[in-house]
Amino acid sequence: METPQHYAELEQLMRSGIPLARAMELRIVGYDGERLALSAPLAPNVNDKGCAFGGSIGSLLTLAAWGLITLKLGERGIAAEVYIRDAELKFSEPVWDSLNAEAWLVEPDWDALLESLSAGKKTRCTMLAEVIGENGAAAAARQKSSFVLLPLVEGTR
Amino acid sequence: METPQHYAELEQLMRSGIPLARAMELRIVGYDGERLALSAPLAPNVNDKGCAFGGSIGSLLTLAAWGLITLKLGERGIAAEVYIRDAELKFSEPVWDSLNAEAWLVEPDWDALLESLSAGKKTRCTMLAEVIGENGAAAAARQKSSFVLLPLVEGTR
Repeated sequence: METPQHYAELEQLMRSGIPLARAMELRIVGYDGERLALSAPLAPNVNDKGCAFGGSIGSLLTLAAWGLITLKLGERGIAAEVYIRDAELKFSEPVWDSLNAEAWLVEPDWDALLESLSAGKKTRCTMLAEVIGENGAAAAARQKSSFVLLPLVEGTR
Repeated sequence: METPQHYAELEQLMRSGIPLARAMELRIVGYDGERLALSAPLAPNVNDKGCAFGGSIGSLLTLAAWGLITLKLGERGIAAEVYIRDAELKFSEPVWDSLNAEAWLVEPDWDALLESLSAGKKTRCTMLAEVIGENGAAAAARQKSSFVLLPLVEGTR
């Protein structure tokens, strides 16, 4: 599969390339150029207490951040491997219903990041992602993560 | 299901109560009273690059830590809800084969923790968990996590 240029292609890449994303029944529900929104039903992501499993929450937040980067690269036709390097995850309240997450870039800005990659440089970025809480206001969980992006030279993929 | 008193019961609880653990094909492979060891094959936990998905690694590390606490409580006949509060996860190298993880308690010690719970107090603890690297020496990934343990009074479960 080519680097996805649209979020329907990204959803297809996640579900065909990452069995756990398929098991989570993950779907992309929104993208406005700055934020990527993912959703997953509770049933495949539940824990023994009947609320969302922490591992599902972490996976959803990681996929939202990774997916947004992958999508932005696809739009610009930049081929790169995108690896997560570290993550800080805070759980504020249990989630008793569908999981809804959003991710966005913190630093650098997209122009600087894409320019660095286009110049063939290994590039780092910081992402934030949240699971929206029950009242829609405060986050039920929040993850700050660092990614490493390795540009692929033509023919190396 | 009762609080597990043996790791075969814990594996059953994980696989019946947490669909994602079942999707990961997670197994308990060792327990010596201090460390709990989990394993999962690569195939259901792979990403689009052919190595282990970061969300699977995070889930495995969380389940190892949660599982060890749950098992220790079961051995002492203490009923409590065990929630993850936050996690710091660092990925040092990709994992290209089966995932093998171990978790252990950092603080307080087990005696202090179990005594606090037996006295009916909400108790916190810090856990470490690692995915063993390819050479068996350095960790491929490491997670430090905080848990909150809420004692259950007889009849509340």
